[in-house]
Amino acid sequence: MRATVIHAPRDIRSETLPDPVVRAPHEAVVRVLAACVCGSDLWPYRGENPVDEPHGIGHEHVGVVEEVGADVRAVSVGDVVVAPFTWSCGRCAHCLAGVHTSCVVGGVFGGEHGAQAELVRVPQADGTLVVVPGHDAASPPDGDLLRDLLACSDVMGTGWHAARSAGVREGSTVVVVGDGAVGLCGVLSAVQQGAARVVVMSRHADRQALAVRFGATDVVAERGEDGEQAVLGLTDGVGADAVLECVGTEGSMTTAFAVARPGATVGFVGVPHGATPPVRRMFRHNVGLAGGIAPVRAYLPDLLHRVLAGSISPGAVFDRELPLAEAAQAYDLMDRREAVKVLLRP
Amino acid sequence: MRATVIHAPRDIRSETLPDPVVRAPHEAVVRVLAACVCGSDLWPYRGENPVDEPHGIGHEHVGVVEEVGADVRAVSVGDVVVAPFTWSCGRCAHCLAGVHTSCVVGGVFGGEHGAQAELVRVPQADGTLVVVPGHDAASPPDGDLLRDLLACSDVMGTGWHAARSAGVREGSTVVVVGDGAVGLCGVLSAVQQGAARVVVMSRHADRQALAVRFGATDVVAERGEDGEQAVLGLTDGVGADAVLECVGTEGSMTTAFAVARPGATVGFVGVPHGATPPVRRMFRHNVGLAGGIAPVRAYLPDLLHRVLAGSISPGAVFDRELPLAEAAQAYDLMDRREAVKVLLRP
Repeated sequence: MRATVIHAPRDIRSETLPDPVVRAPHEAVVRVLAACVCGSDLWPYRGENPVDEPHGIGHEHVGVVEEVGADVRAVSVGDVVVAPFTWSCGRCAHCLAGVHTSCVVGGVFGGEHGAQAELVRVPQADGTLVVVPGHDAASPPDGDLLRDLLACSDVMGTGWHAARSAGVREGSTVVVVGDGAVGLCGVLSAVQQGAARVVVMSRHADRQALAVRFGATDVVAERGEDGEQAVLGLTDGVGADAVLECVGTEGSMTTAFAVARPGATVGFVGVPHGATPPVRRMFRHNVGLAGGIAPVRAYLPDLLHRVLAGSISPGAVFDRELPLAEAAQAYDLMDRREAVKVLLRP
Repeated sequence: MRATVIHAPRDIRSETLPDPVVRAPHEAVVRVLAACVCGSDLWPYRGENPVDEPHGIGHEHVGVVEEVGADVRAVSVGDVVVAPFTWSCGRCAHCLAGVHTSCVVGGVFGGEHGAQAELVRVPQADGTLVVVPGHDAASPPDGDLLRDLLACSDVMGTGWHAARSAGVREGSTVVVVGDGAVGLCGVLSAVQQGAARVVVMSRHADRQALAVRFGATDVVAERGEDGEQAVLGLTDGVGADAVLECVGTEGSMTTAFAVARPGATVGFVGVPHGATPPVRRMFRHNVGLAGGIAPVRAYLPDLLHRVLAGSISPGAVFDRELPLAEAAQAYDLMDRREAVKVLLRP
């Protein structure tokens, strides 16, 4: 099969690897309909995370079940499925508590389970894959629906987690720090969760436009202290009821806390790279920090329902589409911010 | 009047100062029935917070209203009142949101509003003081009731805030890190808020006994990694649903996060002294951090109701009582851990 392999920073190759097969009774093999490149894939691409040896990459996919192990009950060959970016058993204490990302036998796709590929071997298939009703191998989803489903694999679920973690509720004033695909999905999530006002901090016209399409009521283009003052100006100096931190840098974390009103919560989903919570400010003004790696599996059934009902269309974050073989170009486009998020088709 | 003044680390003096009088229409003067020494008073006493110049000290008191300013409506001369350890207007956006500690005209008792004194000048009396029904200057509370009311001024409200911030709910397994007066009140709060199991981490037999009296179901005497392993052993390796961090040091913060299950929240109320939230662990396992300086005013009416109904008796944290003039000895006893908390009587 064709698969994408990272050899070193800025060295992404499309290679032919042996087809994956089921090796344990809890596994399945999925033929990929669509995969994509994630903002977090750019960390190793940019050398900000080490690449010790060449390995498969990609952790988001929608596909058709091709083979199942003897113990798999919840999915069958021919089912169209969405996978969250981590696998999980669905039965341990952490899965039952909705924190599938801490599953005792869990893991993150990538490496020998790389999703930017024609086929993916999925561990813990019963606890991981979610079937898309109304479609099968003979009538697979395509177009907007395929994009919407793929977005649920990571960015939409992650934006949703940011909003849930930040405690967004009916009538909330929300600030979203970050205008990447996750930040944009955070806007959509906040609106779905009842926010009355959603301020997105974004400098890019195309992303601002998509944020507004997703329901943002205000756009703040300034960054740093100017941006913080602008948000405070929009909220009578009080600050936001809930803040979604969708970047993970020191600067974004500082801004997130600066615009949070006393008693608010910062929901963070950007992998921390240098971000340090300002503990004394948190203490002084009772601003909490919650969130982390998103247990997308917990949200997937609800999100798929919203997609199929036409309530949300998060696939709009995909502004480019390339053949899987051209994955290297997808990384380049996203690295140069010429694309928000690139879909890859095997 | 007699008042307590800190001149330098370990230099606490009982002095005669001019009687405070109402200087602004929103103020009241309260004649103190009982005050006390707080764990946080030990920070300057031990030189861990600077003492730039001599100043009044103490921020917890129960008393009788002696004089009110022209604008004061909610309390009258002769009322028995409990004051939280901060004053607040009750009308600004932050007070209305229940975060009275971020009041736009708020402040902390101490300095020229020192509460270890015969008289205290209370700013924002309407928004700050809470009347104790059924008592007045002629029949002031005494004995257990006085101790219970005084505990609500800070430590009980702070323990309550830790439990609320940590998200304690019906059936929760809770760990309380810290066996000072706040930690002990945290145990009591967790039980009142529905916890099914409360593990207190305590090395001192007398404090362990009080924790059990307050409803702790398990006591872990080990500290550091041994203590963390002991808690995990008690929870099938899963960890606690909610953790109350009632100390504020690096070690206590580390322990709090080590015993929190994925998806849990650490409620922190110990003033951070070197405590750094482990942001990558928080992210990896979705453990949140919430809390801060406790908005006791928000909880006071409910807490007084529980005290008067006989549901809680937090005054048991006072294990010594001294005349106000002997405040220096109270500090010494608490510094040497010979007393949990000392009540001072003018």
